[in-house]
Amino acid sequence: MADDVNGPAAPVSRGRGRRPADEVRADVLRTVGELLLTEGMAPFTFERVARASGVSKTTLYKWWPSKGALALDGYFHAVENTLAFPDTGDVRADLLTQLHAFARLMTRTPGGRVLTELIGASQTDADLADAYRRLYSGHRRRLAGERLRRAQEVGQIRAGVDVQVLVDQLWGAVYHRLLIPDEPVTEDFVTALVHNLLDGVRGGPAPAG
Amino acid sequence: MADDVNGPAAPVSRGRGRRPADEVRADVLRTVGELLLTEGMAPFTFERVARASGVSKTTLYKWWPSKGALALDGYFHAVENTLAFPDTGDVRADLLTQLHAFARLMTRTPGGRVLTELIGASQTDADLADAYRRLYSGHRRRLAGERLRRAQEVGQIRAGVDVQVLVDQLWGAVYHRLLIPDEPVTEDFVTALVHNLLDGVRGGPAPAG
Repeated sequence: MADDVNGPAAPVSRGRGRRPADEVRADVLRTVGELLLTEGMAPFTFERVARASGVSKTTLYKWWPSKGALALDGYFHAVENTLAFPDTGDVRADLLTQLHAFARLMTRTPGGRVLTELIGASQTDADLADAYRRLYSGHRRRLAGERLRRAQEVGQIRAGVDVQVLVDQLWGAVYHRLLIPDEPVTEDFVTALVHNLLDGVRGGPAPAG
Repeated sequence: MADDVNGPAAPVSRGRGRRPADEVRADVLRTVGELLLTEGMAPFTFERVARASGVSKTTLYKWWPSKGALALDGYFHAVENTLAFPDTGDVRADLLTQLHAFARLMTRTPGGRVLTELIGASQTDADLADAYRRLYSGHRRRLAGERLRRAQEVGQIRAGVDVQVLVDQLWGAVYHRLLIPDEPVTEDFVTALVHNLLDGVRGGPAPAG
């Protein structure tokens, strides 16, 4: 594989010999995630990551062709645990758990600004838009889809429903308020998203079941 | 009504004396809307609007402090009829009609690119973000809310539902696919948004009513 590189830069060596590339790469991603979740995108540069990780800019550029790609790769790994999809067997409870964690990440850490700025810039930067989908949103959609399809298999979501549409009506609805902040992302909002979509909002006799 | 304009644009004077400011202003907005829906944002400048409308740049700047504000004001008026909310008494049919018209505007005219570029730029431009909400999204939210509340008053949407959340689960879901195009905005997608939200997607016995 072209990315299987052994030679990192800077003071990467430890004891005898060089550390494996995978280890260095994982270190860089961890450093990137920490920088983004504490400082946001504003001070984020290859220079800053090189200094904080002790890996040369040359090596960073070799692995990540742009600042956006480096940020997205690091961010994805930094939030993977926070955004994990629980499976307690109750899709309503699990969606509430995950969406509240997601909303907290977006509103109470610099994570929200990181993503909205990258989404914003990607509207006029085709390479960044591609990196965004490939390194972040594509994975997030896939993971959400897997949990929703398991709910469908056990009959908690109706057969025939396209679960990818639900991704837009839950997480997409949150992004909508983050990107066009006419209304705030509150706990009540997040709770309503899940109940509205599972139960439906039309009036008339209470649904059975 | 301020929008009741008889005359076309350039030259501004006609017969004797000057035209009223409201008339000139409405002409400019119509010109802006036409430019945006045929050419998009790329060639859109004060210069271009001044040339096409026969109104001086000085006057344009007096009324609209930025290119974004001018574009949003013109765009809002240009799409007002296309995006009108029908009220046939059947909220499901009316939402389907309006959302399909909205999706067509977003995917088959430069309108979609105009909005996604303005939303994108507004992530790092506070003045543009303010103009976006004040001149476009705030009005659209209010109009959608009015139609949804009428449906709630006649019992077609459950009492207690916050109709502003529905705005994010319908139009917001479309914006999500426009801004992060992992999945396409299709007719089936738009239809599913409405049925999912009105009927709910949870499995189990079919709802009564």
